[in-house]
Amino acid sequence: MLNWLLIFVPVTLALEYLAPDRYLPIFASAALAILPLAGWLGQATEHLAEHFGEGVGGLLNATFGNATELIIGIVALQAGLHDVVKASIAGSIIGNILLVLGGAMLFGGMRYPEQHFNATGARSQATLLSLAAIALVLPAAYEASAVAKIPQGAHYLSVSISVVLLSVYVLFLVYSLITHKREFVSESGDDDTPKPVPWSMGKALLVLGVATALLAWTSEILVAAIEPSTRQLGLSNAFVGIFVVAILGNAAEHATAITMAMKNRMDLSLAIAIGSSVQVALFVAPVLALASLFVGPAAMDLDFPPGLVLVLLLSVLITGQVAGDGRSDWFKGVQLLAVYLILGMAFAFLAGESPH
Amino acid sequence: MLNWLLIFVPVTLALEYLAPDRYLPIFASAALAILPLAGWLGQATEHLAEHFGEGVGGLLNATFGNATELIIGIVALQAGLHDVVKASIAGSIIGNILLVLGGAMLFGGMRYPEQHFNATGARSQATLLSLAAIALVLPAAYEASAVAKIPQGAHYLSVSISVVLLSVYVLFLVYSLITHKREFVSESGDDDTPKPVPWSMGKALLVLGVATALLAWTSEILVAAIEPSTRQLGLSNAFVGIFVVAILGNAAEHATAITMAMKNRMDLSLAIAIGSSVQVALFVAPVLALASLFVGPAAMDLDFPPGLVLVLLLSVLITGQVAGDGRSDWFKGVQLLAVYLILGMAFAFLAGESPH
Amino acid sequence: MLNWLLIFVPVTLALEYLAPDRYLPIFASAALAILPLAGWLGQATEHLAEHFGEGVGGLLNATFGNATELIIGIVALQAGLHDVVKASIAGSIIGNILLVLGGAMLFGGMRYPEQHFNATGARSQATLLSLAAIALVLPAAYEASAVAKIPQGAHYLSVSISVVLLSVYVLFLVYSLITHKREFVSESGDDDTPKPVPWSMGKALLVLGVATALLAWTSEILVAAIEPSTRQLGLSNAFVGIFVVAILGNAAEHATAITMAMKNRMDLSLAIAIGSSVQVALFVAPVLALASLFVGPAAMDLDFPPGLVLVLLLSVLITGQVAGDGRSDWFKGVQLLAVYLILGMAFAFLAGESPH
Repeated sequence: MLNWLLIFVPVTLALEYLAPDRYLPIFASAALAILPLAGWLGQATEHLAEHFGEGVGGLLNATFGNATELIIGIVALQAGLHDVVKASIAGSIIGNILLVLGGAMLFGGMRYPEQHFNATGARSQATLLSLAAIALVLPAAYEASAVAKIPQGAHYLSVSISVVLLSVYVLFLVYSLITHKREFVSESGDDDTPKPVPWSMGKALLVLGVATALLAWTSEILVAAIEPSTRQLGLSNAFVGIFVVAILGNAAEHATAITMAMKNRMDLSLAIAIGSSVQVALFVAPVLALASLFVGPAAMDLDFPPGLVLVLLLSVLITGQVAGDGRSDWFKGVQLLAVYLILGMAFAFLAGESPH
Repeated sequence: MLNWLLIFVPVTLALEYLAPDRYLPIFASAALAILPLAGWLGQATEHLAEHFGEGVGGLLNATFGNATELIIGIVALQAGLHDVVKASIAGSIIGNILLVLGGAMLFGGMRYPEQHFNATGARSQATLLSLAAIALVLPAAYEASAVAKIPQGAHYLSVSISVVLLSVYVLFLVYSLITHKREFVSESGDDDTPKPVPWSMGKALLVLGVATALLAWTSEILVAAIEPSTRQLGLSNAFVGIFVVAILGNAAEHATAITMAMKNRMDLSLAIAIGSSVQVALFVAPVLALASLFVGPAAMDLDFPPGLVLVLLLSVLITGQVAGDGRSDWFKGVQLLAVYLILGMAFAFLAGESPH
Repeated sequence: MLNWLLIFVPVTLALEYLAPDRYLPIFASAALAILPLAGWLGQATEHLAEHFGEGVGGLLNATFGNATELIIGIVALQAGLHDVVKASIAGSIIGNILLVLGGAMLFGGMRYPEQHFNATGARSQATLLSLAAIALVLPAAYEASAVAKIPQGAHYLSVSISVVLLSVYVLFLVYSLITHKREFVSESGDDDTPKPVPWSMGKALLVLGVATALLAWTSEILVAAIEPSTRQLGLSNAFVGIFVVAILGNAAEHATAITMAMKNRMDLSLAIAIGSSVQVALFVAPVLALASLFVGPAAMDLDFPPGLVLVLLLSVLITGQVAGDGRSDWFKGVQLLAVYLILGMAFAFLAGESPH
């Protein structure tokens, strides 16, 4: 579907060499090129997973399902753009709730006057997200209101939290792939779309390699163009992180969640939207924080600026409420999208750099 | 019922001319005079709406149902009392939750040991309120934690948000009057109280005009007396906005919600309390923000001070929880009222002016 | 079960006289001695309550069930350690949610793949906790964002709030012991464990007296050792209050809640965990605030530092979500414990003293 966007891979290449100081077109072209590459990367991962049984396959899917976000994140760490990385983590979490779920409820609601989903299951996942997000921002929020006394305390704290979050993620994999796998399988098990013929392992590995290489290379161009582009547009790095990088990294999930909603399968749609947020909080965020110890000019602590902490907590609150009543319609979608729009305007107009 | 309070219209007039510097009695008298005038205005609107079909009638009711709040708000804008206006917006939202719902649950619970309501429907409305309130305060909260860089950014943001909120309100009218009207009608459809004979359109328009004129005039006297009265009492403008102006503007809803609870119709009671809060967030607040561009000495931005943002978010949280369990008793009412009382004491004792 | 820990009563005595400047061993020994004493105090209260009918007995249980927390709190007030007292209040509330409920869900979930509880009842209690906690922290949170203008305003506010909270507590006793007692009895009524033979009133009073005396004396030694111990360990008083004093005061509830979960009686487990938090917010906190008017060097206001306010509000949010979906498993327990662990690390690494 997005394959025609692959044209932007050579376009980005051409721009980079022919007009290396036209940052805005380069930024836009690289962003568009990332979309189909992320799609191919995702497909290759899924096909590869087919060759391994449920357990290892599920592990592969869970771990490499966030490969695009990880690749862009690591490239941004190398460039020392910590604010972009943090903003894209926060942006992924809130984007999945407000933009993806909002879009799914709006488009689904335009076909069906009222859609229902399993409120208990959805609440369960919303609780998981709450705990994950709170664990992620709690120290930042606490730190904002305290006078740190131990030098390097925030740094040690960030590393420790990353280890705790990753441990929780490993336990989550044990939970979802071993002890409670039936709950997770059943939701996607009643899929009536015919499955495509699986690729050979060789093809899968080849596509995986090529897509990863191109993605890494395009991400570097994108990241290098962020700062001059935002300056030109009068926007902040945080804005680009939240609203551009986060959307690029999650485009595939966005499309699937909306498609499922239009097929009146709201349970799956919610599972994708909330599940993606959980993976970012429990896996992508700590991996990037730990990776920053080895990559880039300085370690990135998990000290989200207050504005991001607030929007994260509010989206957690919203998720719980939206998931809690077991029903959706087009107007609920409109509201979620309106909150996302207002949030975008707040970051755009205020160009808010945190006082950190 | 409140008609005898009409005596305070001439009393206010008399005080205003005979003892123009006795601010406190003038303030009290004008406040008491507003109560029956708001009641007449509401009745005239309903009778007028009867003459137009469901659609236009519903629109009239929804739009002019908040006429009292709008009139007092615009008069306060003319006097440049932005803090009073913002406080009365926040006060309307929290008052409907804590005072009205608390009162309804207490009085209803004194008659019935346990009252039940449709938890799904109530949660749906609580979600609507959450999203509306979050959209309203999000930028203020974000701004409080950021360093604004774009001059006039907060102002442009405020205007943009007002436009978004009003658009959402228009879509809400489409939703509640057209696409999903059955859900909203059914709730009040099983009303067994005999409907009064509708007034002629001429009578309705006459009462509407007279009540509006008297209301505007009394509001001007009230607003002019706010500052000297609060100084005399050692209270802040915020206190008066939250606990006096907000209550005056919503007295009719308060009475109805409590009456319904005492008839064991908690669904309707909740719908009125939460619905009023939603209307203030989606309609009254943005209309006043936009009106301030043309009325009064300066534009009023939607930058609520942190104290108000916090209580708004907390009352949203409370609404979700209270609505979520589908049952109420007298002790839940006591608790909501206790939170309201403590809130009142906080504003009274601390005389908190925000550092804005 | 914990009786062998009574050995630490003479050990503490010996240390206090033989090595009065070895603060850390004294602190540890006193802490361990408090555990069995609190257990005996609790047992004596329950046996005493048996001798009075349901009403007075329930009152005795409710009031003296928090005796350990009150005794340690009053001793800390005498020593002027207001930060320890406030931290232990906050720590009791969050500890009951995160540590006790988390432990119960983890241990219960290791025996049963999925445990269910009455979501409506649990939500009802979670709402009670929310309102209680919000009432407790609201003014502190408000004050943090306002410029107090009235001298002594915060002090008068604190006293007034304590009176309101205690009044709500009295009404809560009326509610749970008189008007709605069936809801509360039924939950523990189906207990199939054989009841022990009740003690004679004389024995109960004797044990009550001895345990209280020893507890008060051990608490004094513990409190005197807090400051030098924390300095030695590089920790803050807040850390000790939240994570040590709070756990000592609630150890009995912790054990019971976990035991009940392992018997698959999650309803009772939740009732104990959430109920203990409610009692601290509505009874222990205001009693200590009022006691400080007569005990110790200065009055203790209920102005929790921002870090504590935040974690209190977040744990309220979590409780609502966790209780709301009516089911638990081991992974939910892991998550609650992870949040508690991260919170502990935040307080330990940042050694956060609030800017108050």
